[in-house]
This record gives sequence, C-alpha cells and structure tokens, in this order.
Amino acid sequence: MAEFYLGGKKVYYETYGTGGEPILLLNGIMMSAKSWTPFIENFSRFNRLILMDFFDQGGSARMTGAYDHAIQIAAIEGLLAHLKLSVVNICGVSYGAEVGLGFAVKHPDKVRRLALFNGGARTAPLLRDIGRAWNEAARAEGGLAYYLAAIPVIYSDSYYENHADRMANRQKNLVPYFGTQEVKERLIRLTDSSENFNVVDKLGALGMPVLIVTAADDYLIPLREQEIMAEGIKHAHRVILPACGHASMYEQPLLFSALTLGFINSQNGEFVIQ
Amino acid sequence: MAEFYLGGKKVYYETYGTGGEPILLLNGIMMSAKSWTPFIENFSRFNRLILMDFFDQGGSARMTGAYDHAIQIAAIEGLLAHLKLSVVNICGVSYGAEVGLGFAVKHPDKVRRLALFNGGARTAPLLRDIGRAWNEAARAEGGLAYYLAAIPVIYSDSYYENHADRMANRQKNLVPYFGTQEVKERLIRLTDSSENFNVVDKLGALGMPVLIVTAADDYLIPLREQEIMAEGIKHAHRVILPACGHASMYEQPLLFSALTLGFINSQNGEFVIQ
Amino acid sequence: MAEFYLGGKKVYYETYGTGGEPILLLNGIMMSAKSWTPFIENFSRFNRLILMDFFDQGGSARMTGAYDHAIQIAAIEGLLAHLKLSVVNICGVSYGAEVGLGFAVKHPDKVRRLALFNGGARTAPLLRDIGRAWNEAARAEGGLAYYLAAIPVIYSDSYYENHADRMANRQKNLVPYFGTQEVKERLIRLTDSSENFNVVDKLGALGMPVLIVTAADDYLIPLREQEIMAEGIKHAHRVILPACGHASMYEQPLLFSALTLGFINSQNGEFVIQ
Amino acid sequence: MAEFYLGGKKVYYETYGTGGEPILLLNGIMMSAKSWTPFIENFSRFNRLILMDFFDQGGSARMTGAYDHAIQIAAIEGLLAHLKLSVVNICGVSYGAEVGLGFAVKHPDKVRRLALFNGGARTAPLLRDIGRAWNEAARAEGGLAYYLAAIPVIYSDSYYENHADRMANRQKNLVPYFGTQEVKERLIRLTDSSENFNVVDKLGALGMPVLIVTAADDYLIPLREQEIMAEGIKHAHRVILPACGHASMYEQPLLFSALTLGFINSQNGEFVIQ
Repeated sequence: MAEFYLGGKKVYYETYGTGGEPILLLNGIMMSAKSWTPFIENFSRFNRLILMDFFDQGGSARMTGAYDHAIQIAAIEGLLAHLKLSVVNICGVSYGAEVGLGFAVKHPDKVRRLALFNGGARTAPLLRDIGRAWNEAARAEGGLAYYLAAIPVIYSDSYYENHADRMANRQKNLVPYFGTQEVKERLIRLTDSSENFNVVDKLGALGMPVLIVTAADDYLIPLREQEIMAEGIKHAHRVILPACGHASMYEQPLLFSALTLGFINSQNGEFVIQ
Repeated sequence: MAEFYLGGKKVYYETYGTGGEPILLLNGIMMSAKSWTPFIENFSRFNRLILMDFFDQGGSARMTGAYDHAIQIAAIEGLLAHLKLSVVNICGVSYGAEVGLGFAVKHPDKVRRLALFNGGARTAPLLRDIGRAWNEAARAEGGLAYYLAAIPVIYSDSYYENHADRMANRQKNLVPYFGTQEVKERLIRLTDSSENFNVVDKLGALGMPVLIVTAADDYLIPLREQEIMAEGIKHAHRVILPACGHASMYEQPLLFSALTLGFINSQNGEFVIQ
Repeated sequence: MAEFYLGGKKVYYETYGTGGEPILLLNGIMMSAKSWTPFIENFSRFNRLILMDFFDQGGSARMTGAYDHAIQIAAIEGLLAHLKLSVVNICGVSYGAEVGLGFAVKHPDKVRRLALFNGGARTAPLLRDIGRAWNEAARAEGGLAYYLAAIPVIYSDSYYENHADRMANRQKNLVPYFGTQEVKERLIRLTDSSENFNVVDKLGALGMPVLIVTAADDYLIPLREQEIMAEGIKHAHRVILPACGHASMYEQPLLFSALTLGFINSQNGEFVIQ
Repeated sequence: MAEFYLGGKKVYYETYGTGGEPILLLNGIMMSAKSWTPFIENFSRFNRLILMDFFDQGGSARMTGAYDHAIQIAAIEGLLAHLKLSVVNICGVSYGAEVGLGFAVKHPDKVRRLALFNGGARTAPLLRDIGRAWNEAARAEGGLAYYLAAIPVIYSDSYYENHADRMANRQKNLVPYFGTQEVKERLIRLTDSSENFNVVDKLGALGMPVLIVTAADDYLIPLREQEIMAEGIKHAHRVILPACGHASMYEQPLLFSALTLGFINSQNGEFVIQ
C-alpha cells in the first residue's frame, strides 16, 4: 500500500517479501493490484513481489481523453526508478502482458526474464473489433450488455460450464459494477489504449528468455498471434494450457504460479545433457 | 422460388437439378436460401439441390413470440412431404447443422447422410451467453452494437485480417441492416430458439454416416463441443479445417463444397483394403 | 490391366470409367495398383480412374542400383503420353503424394488439381533417419524386424488399438512377405529413392488448387512439414483428420474418397458469398 | 554417490541439498542418475534432490530374466525407507514417469506432488509394438539398427533438424554403446518390463496434484494417452509443450526445470480470485 507521483498523477503499488529475484506482476484490463491477493504469499516466499495499478486502474490516477500504452510504460519506468531497481523480472497477463512486452522492447536491459500469459505482440484486427464491441456495449444502459459482451468470452467453454455457480455469482456482482458510468469510462479508455498496439517489428530487441503461455481456448488471443510473437523472439519458451481460456490465472491458478515462479527462479542454458 | 404453407405459415424453398442424391442445405442463423446462390451450379450438377428458409428467415413467414427448433423441424417435415421425398441427405451450417441434427435424431430413417459444419449437439452455457450478448446488443440503438457483437467473432483471426476490405464492406452494408427493428427482432427470436437446444442424449439414434466439420478457429463451437457430439454418434467422420472460423462456407468455399458433395456422393464401408 | 514400356522397362497401369475428369491415383511405398481395388467402383462413377505401379512396385519393372523420384516422374510422363492425356488430376498418398508433387512442380500445366494425403515437400532429417531405420531392419534375418520397424508407426494409436484383430492378421501375412529377399530389396530401393527429395523452393510453380490432407497422428509427416508445404503453395486448401495416422486411406476410407472426389469434381473460386 | 541393498541387490542413488521439499527425479529408460548432472545445481537450491538408478540402469544391480515395474517400485520403497522419508515429491520422465505413477497409485499417501513428463498410464498396443521393434533391432549385429530404431523417433522433427550436429555426435557415441551386448540386454529387459504396464483403473487413488506434461511431437506417448490418463486423475494439471518431442528435458531443459520446480514449490488451491 504505497504510491508515488508521476507528472502529478498517482501510481499505486504494493511490495511483498524482501529477498530473491524481484517479480513485477502486471494486471489484465479489468484487474487491479488487489486481484492478486490470493497469490501474494506464494509469490513472496522466494521472491520480492511488486504489484501496481496502471493508470485508470484500482488506486492509480484516473485519466481523461485518449492515451496509449506509452503512459503505462512510463508508470513502470517511474516505479522502477522509485524502487531503485535497475533490473526486474516481469510477468504480465493479457493487457499487462502487452504493456510488459512494450516495456521490455523499449528497455531490454532492464528485464531479466519475461513471462507473458494470454497476450500477443499486437492488437490484430479481429481483437480490435472485439474491443470495439465491448465499448459499444458499454454505451448501452446498465451493465448487462457490457457484462455479456466482455465476460463470457474470456472463459473456456469447459470452465464456464463446470463453474456455473461461480459465473452466476460474478454476473450478480459485476452487472451493477459495470453499470457505473465511471467504471465504464475507465474500461473504454483502457480498451482503446490497446487499439494500435503493435511491437511485432521490435521483438528482435529481446535477448532475455521469454515464457509465452497460450491458453488453448483463448478466444481473444488465438494461437496464430502467439506464433507470430514467438517467431520474433530469440529465446522464446512456449507452453500451451489445454482446456483453459483467456483468464488463465483464474482457471489454472496453480499452473500460473508454477510457470511464473519456476521460470523466474530457474537457471537457463546449462541444462543441456551431452 | 416456390412455397408451401404449414398451419397457414409460408415456407419458402428452391430446388435445382433433377437427378442424383437429393441434398437439403440448411441455413445459418443470419442466412437465407439466397445466400447459397454461388453454390447452386456446383451442387446441382450431380445432385438435386434443395434450399429453404427457416421461419423468420428470407421468404418464409415471420413469427411472433418465443419458439424453439421444433417449428423449424416441422418446416423440414412439411417440405419433404410436399416434395414427396422419403429420404434425403442433409447438410447444415451452424443453426442449420443443429436443426438438421435435431431432425435426424427425430427421423433417422429419413436421413441417408448428414454433413454438419460448425454446429454442436447442444447450446453450451458459454454459447448461450454469447447469444444473450448478441440479443442485448440488439437492444442498443442502431445496428453497430449488434454488428460488432455478432460478426467479428464468426471469422478466424487470419481471414479477418487478410480480407479487411471485404469486412469493411460487410460492415457498411450490415450496420444499417442490423439497425432495422424488424431484422433485430427476427434475429433475437432465432437466437433465442436455440437456447435450450440439447440432443446429446439422443445421438445414439443416428445410424447413418455423419460428417462433422470443425473449424479450428470457430470461437462459437469449440473443439470440445465437437468431441462431445462425435462421441455420441456411431459413424462419425471428423475433419478439422485449420485457419478457418465459424463461417466455414465463407472462408473455405471450395472445401465446403468438396466435403459436402464428396461425402454425399461417395459410397461407404467397402473401402477397407485387406 | 495394361502396360507400356519406357526405355525398355515395363510400366503397369489400369484404367476404369470413361467420362469425367481423369484422376491419377499414386501409390504409397508399400502399395500397388491392386491396393485400390475396393475404391475402383466409387472413383470411376463420375471420373476416369487411372492406377499405375511405380518402378519397383507391383506389375512394373524391377530396378537395380540406386535411383530417385526422377524415374517415377518419368513413368508418369510416359503414361500420360501413352494415354494421350495433356492434363490430369493427381491424388497421391505418402510416397505417391511426393512423386505427384514433384511431377506437378515440373509440369504445372499438366495438373488441373492436386490432392496430397500424408506427404510433405521434402524428406526432413527425422524422416530420412526413420527410413534408414527401416532399411537397417530389412537387413536383419526374416521379416519381423522390418514389420515392426515400418508398420506400427504408420497407424494411429487409436486405430491400432481398435483394430487389434486386423493388425494381428496383417502381421501374420506381412512378416513372411517382408522376409522375402526380393521384397526387402525393392522396399530398400524405394525408401532410398526419397532420401534427397526436396521441392520446397519450387512450390511457387504451382498455380492449381492443391488439397493438403494432414492426419493428426501421422508420425512420419508431422504437422510442421505440412505447414512448410502449405506456406509455399498459392492455392493450398488444408484439412486435418483427427485420430488418423499415416495410412489415411486405410483408417478413413470414406473421408479419403469424399475429399478426393469432392475436391476434383467441385468448381473453384466462384463460391464466395457477397 | 551412495548405495543400499535390497534383497542383496545394489540400488545406486545420489542426494543433493538439505532443505526444502524433497524431489525424487526418476530416469527415462536410457538414462541414469548421471544424466541429471547439469540439473543438480538448479534443483538443489530450494529443494533436496534425490537421484537414483533403476535396476538395470547405471550403478544399480543388473538383472537376469524378465521382470516388470514392481521391482523398480520396490527400489523406490527401499530408498525412501533408507532415507527415512515418509513423503516425497516425484518427478519422472518417460519410463520414470510410469514407474513413478505406479508407485503413487500404490502409495498415494507417500507422494505430495507428482510431475509426469512424457509418460502415460499404460503401454498402449502401438507403444508395445514400438518397443518390440526396438528389441528386434537390438538383435541385429552392431549398434546401428538399434540406434536408428530407438533414437530418431524420440526427438521432434524440428529439434532433429535444428541440432543436426548434436544428433550426428550422439550417433557417433551411441552406435558403439548400443553395439555392446550387455547394454543391449539391459535395454531389452527394461523395455520388456513396461510391456504390461496399465494403471488406468487405479488412477482414482491419486488425491495429490498431478502435473501432466505432454510434448506435442511425442511420437511414443500421443495426446490421446495423456487424455486417458488425465481423465482418471482428480487433480490433473495439464501442460502441452509445442515443437517438443519425447525427450522434453533435452529439448526444453528450461521449461522442464521451471515446470517441475514451480509445481513442487507452489502452494495449491488458495489461488482462486473471487
């Protein structure tokens, strides 16, 4: 529960643990630092865990008008300077994976390892129009249209069916939340900020090991986008999670933790048996 | 261009060709008999082709109030009686695949071969809520919200990108169309008519060869639903189309034609090499 | 049951049917024209079917010493000249797919449509060494080592289990056959003839529609090789057969027939719905 | 470098590190405790690492006559008693995964976490006959036939091509090794010991979290076998490694380490975001 200011705008962050490799966990679009509460104990045992809210998320400043990922990358730059960290490990999910990738491409020397869950190297035309669909639904009265546009599609077919009670509960809680004008406007701005995201041509800058986790039933980031990203990254290590949707840290929390912590805390390169 | 009446309600149909195995082509939800115009010549060379509009589609009667697939199955029953056809081959896409499957389960003796593109044996909870998202978007003013909710997601990521001009053109034509109240209401009713579709427990009735075509990038009917369906069908023959979305007859028209015509016009069972 | 001579060497062939598009069916390495007997009736109803034995197969001449695909391509050239056919449709499986592809790359104007089952555009290093394993096993006494090296791996895991009786019968028949010195020597030469096959850089010559059928459980021609091939072909139409191994015409005879006949007898290009 | 005796037969083992969750790493069929040398430092930082040789491997006793997995399971039982460990985490690859699974099914209370790479819950008929092919090739003179039968097929198509130098070097070293009669006889016995392995019906005994790692290009343990295994395990966590073959710890050593260490060192169950 801490904060710093960047150009007069508050950036909210939290840190846990003291030793080990630092891990900066970056949020998906509808998340906040608070979303990671159940992961904190596990992530701070062997590592220093850093959580933050992007602008227009959780405890960080609200924006007005359009912006793109550059301001979120600036927030990360500011946070690392504030914490006096010259190098960090980054794990991001969805929006956080893409902002994290943008940061790594800009500052490859500041990122030791990069773990990307459910993110691509660009906003493909199909994803762009899915985002526009969400924003159009946000303009309808109440929160139901937005809920139905944005939530079911982020789960796998099997999770959605096997956790019907949990989904019903989420709907009950989220429809009023999405019905709030301030929430809608933040989500519209965040979604819009990804519309022109494209670092495909800059991936060659990455020299560190990069973990790319694809969920087999991720309808937003299909396999093809993961292949486009992996082809451009020198040390890409790919994993596919079967029967898992876009929100892999929800559907497969143990695998999310295992992959992230294992990847960041393992050594590399020496493991070749002669 | 012909019609007959069922309980006072018009059913529109077309027939082409005279000889060979008859093929009844069943429409997807946003299609009509007219959608198949470019396929007519090919499908009527060796076969008798039959097209029809479901209720609330094209030239058939408009409904009021809620209904389910039973009335569409009744339309098929009526059409076969009207044409004096005791046995037919059925090829359906999406909604048409599901109504066709429902008909075959009810009348297995009337279906010689069944070719199912992009359809499942039930409306899974995720698909049900995607349908509700479309209907919620239909309630927004104009046609843009509905277009964005329902159209991008039926294409594959790669087709959507590689045919950006065609998609832009579709958007230009479809947004005003979807903005029409009468169109919205029909589509809402058709979508609602599938909400409780589930013939998983009745698939054992099918003794004929069934072709199941899965598009690898079909975000509405994922692989799992195809596997659930195939497991229940005694003579299921499965094919997967890579880099193809829900509208397989749009994205892969040659494969759609080849698979349907080849499957219906080939003999079965004798082809085992000793 | 006919033959012609090429440079003094016999080429055995068979033709069936008279009208329709001609289809030249090319054998896999352990097959002969006789292998297709159960398919003849179906393939000659709407088409003129042409079967042939490659050199070192069935009724065609035995070779001595090493050779490559060029002599098999010459046999096709000779057969077309003999039959006075200037253009033909080619369907090949495995070895036959690769020789057929080599022919099409050399004579793109002579091939109207090309259907390739379980073949690639090159012999990848792994496949080369699998072939060497077969040939090394052929040098062991008797036919069991060769049978075990070459036969189980061409079936899918599921087919092998579900047709245990059929496989036991095949083993009983094939072990003595593979124990024959003349048979072993032919198979060694045929396998060796593919060792340097590579037309990846020549695929741009192909302007005709090409059907590429991948079996999901084909351990000899993995998905990656199919993607390498498809990327180089302008009008590639891809299909994946789940739960199917390298011998797709054995495991899925109805789909083999449907795909080949449907692809060759369907028109192309006009099928785009506006 | 230590040993104990079981019924008069030596079992060789090594231990590293002192604290943290103990990890017992179980070998594939052609491996020994020495194969893990490059992994020791990484695996013993946060954990106590235990390596062992199965009977007929490395420093453990040679057998005579046929046996099955029961003697290898007895070796594990003996080792845990010798080390006074009542509960352990097990990670196994291939043969080691299957023996480890057999141990866990017999002693579910002794296994805290189980990580299974490239192993199934049974020896399917196809795999049985692939094993017989290896053993038949072992009976040929010299080591080349065995090398070609058993080695290429354990790599992915892409690894085999991209590491041609390494493969050539392996061939140079392994052909003489496999040409040794004593080595051949051990490998034949080890392969035979798996022939009747089948614990599919006993998987319900497992209550601990089980990590199942499938390599997409594993020609020995296809996806279907992994699905059969996963269906029977209550807390199965599945991961697929694309472009990876049967020897996943060779082809993807960083992912092997990350998955194993992350899975064993992460907590479970609390990670569900409300």
